[in-house]
Amino acid sequence: MRLNTERKEEPLFIKVHEKDNVAIVVNAGGLKEGTTFSNGLVLTSRVPEGHKVALKEIAEKDEIIRYGEVIGKALKPIKKGSWVEESMVELPIPPDLHKLSIATRVPDALPPLEGYTFRGFRNPDGSVGIKNVLGISTSVQCVVGVLDFAVKRIKNELLPNYPNVDDVVAINHQYGCGVAIQAPEAIIPIRTLQNLAKHPNFGGEALIIGLGCEKLSPLMLAPDGKDRDILSLQEQAGFSDMVTNIMNMAEEKLEKLNLRKREICSVSDLVVGLQCGGSDAFSGVTANPAVGYAADLLVRAGATVMFSEVTEVRDAVNLLTPRCETKEIGNALIKEMQWYDEYLQKGKADRSANPSPGNKKGGLSNIVEKSLGSIVKSGSSAISGVLAPGEKATQKGLLYAATPASDFVCGTLQLASGMHLQVFTTGRGTPYGLAMAPVIKVSTRNALAEQWNDLIDVNAGTIATGESTIEDVGWEIFHHIIEVASGERKTWADQWGLHNDLALFNPAPIT
Amino acid sequence: MRLNTERKEEPLFIKVHEKDNVAIVVNAGGLKEGTTFSNGLVLTSRVPEGHKVALKEIAEKDEIIRYGEVIGKALKPIKKGSWVEESMVELPIPPDLHKLSIATRVPDALPPLEGYTFRGFRNPDGSVGIKNVLGISTSVQCVVGVLDFAVKRIKNELLPNYPNVDDVVAINHQYGCGVAIQAPEAIIPIRTLQNLAKHPNFGGEALIIGLGCEKLSPLMLAPDGKDRDILSLQEQAGFSDMVTNIMNMAEEKLEKLNLRKREICSVSDLVVGLQCGGSDAFSGVTANPAVGYAADLLVRAGATVMFSEVTEVRDAVNLLTPRCETKEIGNALIKEMQWYDEYLQKGKADRSANPSPGNKKGGLSNIVEKSLGSIVKSGSSAISGVLAPGEKATQKGLLYAATPASDFVCGTLQLASGMHLQVFTTGRGTPYGLAMAPVIKVSTRNALAEQWNDLIDVNAGTIATGESTIEDVGWEIFHHIIEVASGERKTWADQWGLHNDLALFNPAPIT
Ligand SMILES: [Ca+2]
Ligand SMILES: [Ca+2]
Ligand SMILES: [Ca+2]
Ligand SMILES: [Ca+2]
Ligand SMILES: [Ca+2]
Repeated sequence: MRLNTERKEEPLFIKVHEKDNVAIVVNAGGLKEGTTFSNGLVLTSRVPEGHKVALKEIAEKDEIIRYGEVIGKALKPIKKGSWVEESMVELPIPPDLHKLSIATRVPDALPPLEGYTFRGFRNPDGSVGIKNVLGISTSVQCVVGVLDFAVKRIKNELLPNYPNVDDVVAINHQYGCGVAIQAPEAIIPIRTLQNLAKHPNFGGEALIIGLGCEKLSPLMLAPDGKDRDILSLQEQAGFSDMVTNIMNMAEEKLEKLNLRKREICSVSDLVVGLQCGGSDAFSGVTANPAVGYAADLLVRAGATVMFSEVTEVRDAVNLLTPRCETKEIGNALIKEMQWYDEYLQKGKADRSANPSPGNKKGGLSNIVEKSLGSIVKSGSSAISGVLAPGEKATQKGLLYAATPASDFVCGTLQLASGMHLQVFTTGRGTPYGLAMAPVIKVSTRNALAEQWNDLIDVNAGTIATGESTIEDVGWEIFHHIIEVASGERKTWADQWGLHNDLALFNPAPIT
Repeated sequence: MRLNTERKEEPLFIKVHEKDNVAIVVNAGGLKEGTTFSNGLVLTSRVPEGHKVALKEIAEKDEIIRYGEVIGKALKPIKKGSWVEESMVELPIPPDLHKLSIATRVPDALPPLEGYTFRGFRNPDGSVGIKNVLGISTSVQCVVGVLDFAVKRIKNELLPNYPNVDDVVAINHQYGCGVAIQAPEAIIPIRTLQNLAKHPNFGGEALIIGLGCEKLSPLMLAPDGKDRDILSLQEQAGFSDMVTNIMNMAEEKLEKLNLRKREICSVSDLVVGLQCGGSDAFSGVTANPAVGYAADLLVRAGATVMFSEVTEVRDAVNLLTPRCETKEIGNALIKEMQWYDEYLQKGKADRSANPSPGNKKGGLSNIVEKSLGSIVKSGSSAISGVLAPGEKATQKGLLYAATPASDFVCGTLQLASGMHLQVFTTGRGTPYGLAMAPVIKVSTRNALAEQWNDLIDVNAGTIATGESTIEDVGWEIFHHIIEVASGERKTWADQWGLHNDLALFNPAPIT
């Protein structure tokens, strides 16, 4: 679909759904009072870029409708043509988790998309890596200083001798000791670390560096439960010995990894994660729908696609449970929402505190509006599975992987689920990257893509100005994924080496 | 006091208090059944190094006494001369926080210790730094990739031109967005970041890098609440521009910092943090008492000394509240214990889960025994203040700074409290270091000091073998602190550049 908008210079708004009584202003810098749109609508006040304009008179207590859904009620009468500010919109009550309909509107399977391949590294267990990386796990943060020192030397002195190996990555984290490891919720960080060590880009060859007295036993991280690839620092004769022995173990692994070669793989071998960060009002009408279109293409090609971010899905979950393939899947989704409701309540967190100030400045009034714009990333297919935080994906199709919305925590958990690469949409802009897997950054606005032309990989802003369609950008993202997965193209973050630290999700106490 | 032990080769045990009915075996590798000590005691079973031997017959349900305090009751009869294993000791109930006596045994002020100075950097606000560091704060983890890239270039290209500046340190962390910033407990991470930016080693010149849409406003981190030294990445024209502008701001600061010169300062200007990590049964009889002696010297010299680690103090808090100078200070201490009790309970954390497996392997049966050995670090002076997690120290004397026991979280919070350097005791061994402040590592055992001779700064193991006294090592630590503070001596961690990441304490939810 091509949005009904005209040339760049003209005043433009985007109305998403025919029922909507608000639309968002497209023009950079916003539009001033008195501006007349081609349909005759006249602005009765200034409306900033990305913010909402009332398309009709809205009486006090009337519903404000976007995406065809209620995003809140008017706290006072809103004039046709005026700016619908955050303070005018009452936050609706979140969907009651006990009253959701499940599997009632399961979409038909989308037509298969065949013949798309990429060049990946086939692993002994049948999985595929898209990079050839020496992964080094850590059982506790105590070892990080020594490991960082050793990794620097491995990269400088050893890696150049193994041209088929792309990188050396330390899985550093803030867990392992000084934590309540027997608390019920400790299962989340432990499972995450176990699955990170098994990431397909490591080719089943991860090393593990432990200290020796930590609570989290390094053996718990060993993919096969054997201590073959574990180095315990307390058993070493000092610092120099530690570094020498890490380097020796690394060299053995580099020799093995260097034998890996790319081969033709089906797109159905891919596991793609979706996320947004620094959202604005355009996220839900440009980048996220384009990603949703790409998600559908991936699902049609047989791949695994994960969408996440509980706090951004919670307020629109009533639109997701009907799409779940079975009652069991729907109930699993509800269980994750319930767990998170309780988690936030325990910490006395105010649900209205998401969106961030930046989201609000970008035009997102509240979490309902943000959620509606966020879940369009999931495309239109049935939801065929739900993963608890950090669980490994074992199915194909569209999965809901429960994670916080925090970019780094979500990224880390999706990596644990086996994500090969992440598609990340951003409106305000964030220079986000991960060392373990490429991140393709999709801009929601032309202005950001121009301003950050050495950081943004795909520009979906052209959808707002009518220069391209959701389908165009969706296909562009799909092809971009294949090229990155094949090692033929680097994301900007990888080109610069912009890699954020992993951030484990540990809902259990620190001790 | 010189411990009543003899030549290294002979079988040795350490009995700490005359009331004790158990003692710990000193000899490396432990002692076998049938070994006879000089006092006539014969081992009826093997006893590993650092583990406890029964000095008398102990009947079932009898109290097991160490440090003159009850560390538990016997779960079965224990023969004189036999190994007192963890499974034989019942965990006692923790001291009831409502029944503590406060300020009832306030120690008299220790005799002043005058004339000790070091060479530090006097700051405009009167505080003193012991290093001259360009600190770069971050309001959100989104900026870390870019900042790390820029810091590498600053260190390579700019720092060499400013010989009086020691280092450039980025205050990276996992906070700022995707967190429940309005939750009641958010005050802890926010206060911590605010105080880290004001660390005395930064000379009041910290830069702040923000993104632009994060929840934690960079302005909240500015020491004077002005935006002069803030760079917002979303306002920059892409990655290259970000790096250039960070470097330009850094160069301005380097020019200022380069004018700082060391001058003679009183030891009373110092703020020293105390911590232990990877403890064993020797911690409480060698390294920690020696640190306690050094703590007394520092207090006598007018310095600020902080001890911490709630989970290791909780079970011996009944010995601390009587030492508090006033009722108010005692109640503040109890309040911190109460908060932590509730925090652990909310997360369903099992209190017996501390000590770690390594602690237990090292001979520590339970948290009571560990606590008794831990609090001796505080020496013998009155407790003159209590800091909530991340609060800035503003008083002299011995302070209790409430922190988790996690080495990294404790280290980060003590840095926020203004710690110039940390004295860190370890029995099992951990290669711990901090970029913002030197960490002096004190070994509890000779064997560790020998094995890790390129990591351990001070060896307190000689106390166990009678080669030195608690006073000797206490003075050694005191002099070591002065030399490191003056920049005349480097810790091993600083020599190798072993620096662990900061770890914020955020008891509030992730969103
Ligand atoms: Ca998001
Ligand atoms: Ca996110
Ligand atoms: Ca400790
Ligand atoms: Ca500790
Ligand atoms: Ca790091």
